[in-house]
Amino acid sequence: MEDEVVLLDLWASSFAMRVKIALAEKGIKYECKQEDLFNKSPLLLEMNPIHKKIPVLIHNGKPISDSLIIVQYIDQVWNHKSPLLPSDPYQRSQALFWGDYIDKKIYSIGRRIVAGKEDQEEAKEELMQCLKTLEGELGDKLYFGGESIGYVDVALVPFTSWFYTYETCGNFSIEAGCPTLIAWARRCRENESVSKALPDPLKTYDYMMQLKKRLGW
Amino acid sequence: MEDEVVLLDLWASSFAMRVKIALAEKGIKYECKQEDLFNKSPLLLEMNPIHKKIPVLIHNGKPISDSLIIVQYIDQVWNHKSPLLPSDPYQRSQALFWGDYIDKKIYSIGRRIVAGKEDQEEAKEELMQCLKTLEGELGDKLYFGGESIGYVDVALVPFTSWFYTYETCGNFSIEAGCPTLIAWARRCRENESVSKALPDPLKTYDYMMQLKKRLGW
Repeated sequence: MEDEVVLLDLWASSFAMRVKIALAEKGIKYECKQEDLFNKSPLLLEMNPIHKKIPVLIHNGKPISDSLIIVQYIDQVWNHKSPLLPSDPYQRSQALFWGDYIDKKIYSIGRRIVAGKEDQEEAKEELMQCLKTLEGELGDKLYFGGESIGYVDVALVPFTSWFYTYETCGNFSIEAGCPTLIAWARRCRENESVSKALPDPLKTYDYMMQLKKRLGW
Repeated sequence: MEDEVVLLDLWASSFAMRVKIALAEKGIKYECKQEDLFNKSPLLLEMNPIHKKIPVLIHNGKPISDSLIIVQYIDQVWNHKSPLLPSDPYQRSQALFWGDYIDKKIYSIGRRIVAGKEDQEEAKEELMQCLKTLEGELGDKLYFGGESIGYVDVALVPFTSWFYTYETCGNFSIEAGCPTLIAWARRCRENESVSKALPDPLKTYDYMMQLKKRLGW
């Protein structure tokens, strides 16, 4: 039986991009269904009744939610190529640790930069601190995963498509403070799995400006 | 070589209790070092420089942080008995999903109940809603893990040692709304791995009242 793989997606979501990169790394064909943030489909509400959030991967009718859990699932099911998580328990725990770190930090800090309220300067500093911490973890490796893209790369690189938005909203340069991380992001984009999943930063910026207006931020 | 296993612990922490249950399920001997929230040890700051939080498991000198990542690590390293996560990828993803759900919800809601501010009533309702959702997931199984304690049981049961504190601070009964979950908690406590890791609820309550005074909540 052919696998039926469906992704409930929102093209601008960093969380959904993670799933697209992981599926591309594994060479898995799938159907992508765009969701509307303001008019969620009955399918999304049925498949993720708890959080009602994209991304959801539906594999042969069974839904998996939460982007990093989906990436782990993909890595375990399609283990014939491009391992994303190390098999060594300690290395694996460290990759999970950094994935969790990225999850807890980047999105919420970025949102504060975009909102542009009184804590924007503080948020900019927090973002740079956070990215420098990640630069320290990258060290002189090509990728967080070593010689090839791994779990932490998949977790982090989607957010780089939002860097232009953060920089424009906050009037600062991420590259000036974190050149090593920006070089890593460029290296990631040389992989088709990444370049195809990440939208044009200008398009993301336009999307966010419309969203901001609509939400009255 | 004998494994050297050290746990940086705080006896009242639900997150640390998870690690103690997992180690007990696997029959692993370890040294427990109590940390002081207000005077963190140099060892803790060295072993978890990013979050500076307990629990940290130090296995043969290498630190692992974040309670659920530690539980996964323990399950992978000591896989000779008491599997905590299912090996099936889909079942595994669902266990990870519920572990994450518990992580995102219970502690922060419980804290709002204990703080007793103007959103306390709302927090009580959220807690009951959340526990009912978990009751739905438990269904008529003995444990979330099925016939024996699994990952989701390990993630959730420590918080039941705080239920008396929540109930006393919020003046309500959790059992009245969620009898199935309370029966499950009692069943869990019949396992020595759980009963030895969970402190007396009255002791936890006293600890929290002192902490609340000290923090000026």
